[in-house]
Amino acid sequence: MYIDDTIAAIATAPGEGGIGIVRMSGEKALDIAESVFESVNKKSIKDHNPRTLIYGNIIDDGKIIDEVLLAYMKGPHTYTKEDVIEINCHGGFISVKKILELVLKKGARLAEGGEFTKRAFLNGRIDLSQAEAVMDIINAKTDMSYNVAQSQLEGSLSFKIKELRNKVTELLAHVEVAIDFPDEDVEHITYENLYNKSKELRKEIINLYETSETGKIIRDGLKTVIVGKPNVGKSSLLNAILKESRAIVTDIPGTTRDVIEEFVNINGIPLRIIDTAGIRDTEDVVEKIGVQKSREFFESADLAILVLDASRELSVEDIDILENVKNKNTIVLINKTDLENKMDEDKIKEYIDEKRIIKISALERKGIDKLENEIADMVYKGNVSQGDSVMITNVRHKDSLERAINSINDAINAIEDNMALDFIEVDLKNIWDYLGEVSGDTVSEDLLDTIFRDFCIGK
Amino acid sequence: MYIDDTIAAIATAPGEGGIGIVRMSGEKALDIAESVFESVNKKSIKDHNPRTLIYGNIIDDGKIIDEVLLAYMKGPHTYTKEDVIEINCHGGFISVKKILELVLKKGARLAEGGEFTKRAFLNGRIDLSQAEAVMDIINAKTDMSYNVAQSQLEGSLSFKIKELRNKVTELLAHVEVAIDFPDEDVEHITYENLYNKSKELRKEIINLYETSETGKIIRDGLKTVIVGKPNVGKSSLLNAILKESRAIVTDIPGTTRDVIEEFVNINGIPLRIIDTAGIRDTEDVVEKIGVQKSREFFESADLAILVLDASRELSVEDIDILENVKNKNTIVLINKTDLENKMDEDKIKEYIDEKRIIKISALERKGIDKLENEIADMVYKGNVSQGDSVMITNVRHKDSLERAINSINDAINAIEDNMALDFIEVDLKNIWDYLGEVSGDTVSEDLLDTIFRDFCIGK
Repeated sequence: MYIDDTIAAIATAPGEGGIGIVRMSGEKALDIAESVFESVNKKSIKDHNPRTLIYGNIIDDGKIIDEVLLAYMKGPHTYTKEDVIEINCHGGFISVKKILELVLKKGARLAEGGEFTKRAFLNGRIDLSQAEAVMDIINAKTDMSYNVAQSQLEGSLSFKIKELRNKVTELLAHVEVAIDFPDEDVEHITYENLYNKSKELRKEIINLYETSETGKIIRDGLKTVIVGKPNVGKSSLLNAILKESRAIVTDIPGTTRDVIEEFVNINGIPLRIIDTAGIRDTEDVVEKIGVQKSREFFESADLAILVLDASRELSVEDIDILENVKNKNTIVLINKTDLENKMDEDKIKEYIDEKRIIKISALERKGIDKLENEIADMVYKGNVSQGDSVMITNVRHKDSLERAINSINDAINAIEDNMALDFIEVDLKNIWDYLGEVSGDTVSEDLLDTIFRDFCIGK
Repeated sequence: MYIDDTIAAIATAPGEGGIGIVRMSGEKALDIAESVFESVNKKSIKDHNPRTLIYGNIIDDGKIIDEVLLAYMKGPHTYTKEDVIEINCHGGFISVKKILELVLKKGARLAEGGEFTKRAFLNGRIDLSQAEAVMDIINAKTDMSYNVAQSQLEGSLSFKIKELRNKVTELLAHVEVAIDFPDEDVEHITYENLYNKSKELRKEIINLYETSETGKIIRDGLKTVIVGKPNVGKSSLLNAILKESRAIVTDIPGTTRDVIEEFVNINGIPLRIIDTAGIRDTEDVVEKIGVQKSREFFESADLAILVLDASRELSVEDIDILENVKNKNTIVLINKTDLENKMDEDKIKEYIDEKRIIKISALERKGIDKLENEIADMVYKGNVSQGDSVMITNVRHKDSLERAINSINDAINAIEDNMALDFIEVDLKNIWDYLGEVSGDTVSEDLLDTIFRDFCIGK
C-alpha cells in the first residue's frame, strides 16, 4: 500500500528566505532522520523529548550539509497522524535540495502534491472539505478569502454538511420503517409530512448552494479586464485601484512569461486583473482584442471595465467596444471628469444599465470608491458581511450540491405523484451520497487523486 | 539601544508553500507570544519545556487566525543568543502576514534585512565572515557555491584570518619589545628575521587573496552573454547547455520585468546568463546591442560567447561582433559542424586565441563538453578542486586583504630601507586591523549597516 511508505518534500515556498523546511512522514521517518542527523549534544533523536527542536547538523558521508533544528513528532498526534520529522535548515535553493536528496537516498519517497494533507484525510484527522481548505488557505489572496478558507478548515462546512446529512438520515429512517414494516402498529410518516420536511431540506441546501457564486469569486478572484481606447486613462485607473486598495499580492507569474496576474483587494474581493503583455505594451486594447490570447481572456472574464474619456465625444471605436461588452458584466467608467464634459451619456445608456455607469477622475483619484462599491455590490448582491457564515467556494462542492438538489427535486416530485416509498428512498439515498461527496465520505480514489494533484508539493 | 527591542519578521521565502514561519527575537518575544497564542492543552508557553513545538492557535480578538506549531527557545542558546519564538503556520501570503501584523501590534518591531543574523554577530555567536556566509548560503546557486559558503559559515575563513592575525601579533610583540626595551638584555628580533617572517606572511595573505577571483565567480556567478547573428543557433546552444548541465535554478525575476537571469551550473560554476527580453525576442543581437540595456549588460559581462554558423561564410556583421568582443573574455563557438564547413577559421584567429575557438553542433549536442571544460579552465585556472579549501568569495574581504597586502609591502620596504622600528610597527598594526575587518573585529557601525542591508528580511 502506498500509504505505508515514508514520504518527504520541501515544505516551504521555493526561493530565498531565512529558513527552509524539509518534512518527512511515515514509519521510517525517525530511522532515516537518525541516519543523517548528528545532534550537537551527541544524543540520538529518540533520546530527546518528542516535539523538541534539536540543534545539530545534517551529515552526508562525514561532511556537514547544513546546521539545522530538527523535530520528531510521534504519530498519531501529528499533521498526518503518522510519525513526522521536520528539519529546519537554511533557506534558499541548495540546502533544502541537498537535504531532501539525502533523505530520499536513505529510503524516503518524494511526496506527491498534497500527499501530507491527503494522508491527514485518509487517516481520518480531517475530512475532505477541510483538506481542500488547507490549499485554499495557502492560495488565499485577500483576508476575506483567507477567512472563508480558515472557517472551512475549522470545520464550519463539515458541520453544516453533517447537519444536512443527519436530516436526510432521519427522513430515510422514517421511510425505511414504513417500507419494512408497513403493517406494524407504529405511526408512519405521512406523505404530507414527508413533503414538508423535504421542502425544508431543499430550502436549506439551496441556501447553501446559493453562496457558491460569491464564494467562488472570493476564493478564485473576479477575473477582470480593463478595456478602452488608447489614452483614456486605463493605466491611471489601474494605478489608482492598486494604490487605494492596498494590493497585497503583486506579481504572480503565470504559466507563460507573457501573462501577469495582478490581484487587487476590493472590499475583500480579489480582483484578478490579468494583464497580458500585449495589452499592457500597446495600450491599444481595441486592436489587441484581435490577438488570440487577449480575446480568450476577454471572453472568459467575469467583469469588463470599460474606460471612456469624458473630454472627448463618443467615437466609432467606443461604440464598437460598447457593442462587445454590452452582453457581459460591465461597468463603464467615464474618466477625466476633471476636464470639460463632451460625453453623450444617453448614448451609453442604450448599451449599459445606468447604475453601472460611473464618473471618475483617475488622475484626481475621485470616484474610485464608487467603482469599488459597485463591484462589491455585484459580488455580494447586497449581503456584504459574509465573512463568518458558511460559504461554498469550491466548484466540486457546488457540483455535488447541485446533484443533491436535483435528487431532492426528484424526491419531492415523487411524493407529489404519490409514488411508492421505494422510489423516494432511492432519491433520499442519493442526496445522502451527494452531500457525502463534499465531506469525502463518499468519494472515489480517482477523484481523490484529482483533488490532491492540484496541491503544492510539501503540503 | 536598538538591540534592546524585540524584532519580528517572516522567515520563510514568500510564495505558496506548505509551511510559513514568523520569527521573533528579543526580551519581549515570550510575552508577545503568550498574548496571541492559545495552546490546545490550555497551558501557557512557559509551562511547556523550552524548544518544544506546541500545537495551538494564534488568536486575535477571540478569532482564530491560524492553527500553528509554536516553539520558544530561551537565550542564549539560540540563533541570536536572545529569546526566540518561532511560529510555524500555513504557508501562502495571508497567514504569515496576519500573524506578523498581530505580533507587531503587540509590541514587536519589524526586523530590518539581516537583523537576526546581525544580532547573532553583535552578541558574539558568530563573526562577521560567518554572518556573511549565512546570506551566501541562502543565495547559493550551485553546490560549489553552497559548499564554499557552508565552509565559511563553519568558520574556515575565520580560522585562517585568526591564524594570520596571530602571526602579525607575534611580529608586533617582537617589534614592540625592541622599541620599548632597546637596551635590555633580551634577544631582539633582527631586521633579517623580521624581513623573512614578513615575506612569509605576505605570501600567505597573497595566496588567500588570489582565491578571490575564482571565489567571486563561484559566489556570484559568471556573468555571461551569448551573442551572434540571427539563426546561428544561440537558442539551441542555450537549450543544449541547460539540458546538459542540469540547471538548478531556472527563472529569477530581476528588478524589472524585462530582465530574466538564468543560472546554469557548469562544473560548479554558476553561469549567470542574463537574458534581456530584447535579446531573446528579436534574436538580432547585433541590432539590440544598440539598445541601452543590452549594451550595459554586454559591457559588464565576464564572458562573451560568440556563436558563428559554420555553414555560412564570415559576414560583415560577424566581423563587426568580433571587433566588439576581441578585448573581452571571449569564447567563439563555430556551430552547425554537422553541415558543410564554409567558415574561414584563420580570419577568426586574427581576433581570438585559437584555444578559445571551439567547434560544436548544438543540434547534435556535440562539443558542449569542450565549451564547459574551457569555461571551467578559465575560472579555476587549472586548480579544479577548490571546494574544500578556504576561499575569498566576498568583494569586501578581497578589499580588506588588498589593504593588508599594501601595508605588508610598506612594512617590507621599511625593513629593506632600515627605517626605525616605529614605522614598521604602524604598518604591522594596519595589517592587523585590515585582517580584522574580514572577521568583523574592526569594523564601523556604518559598514555593518551596509553589509546587513543586503540580507533578506527574516534572516
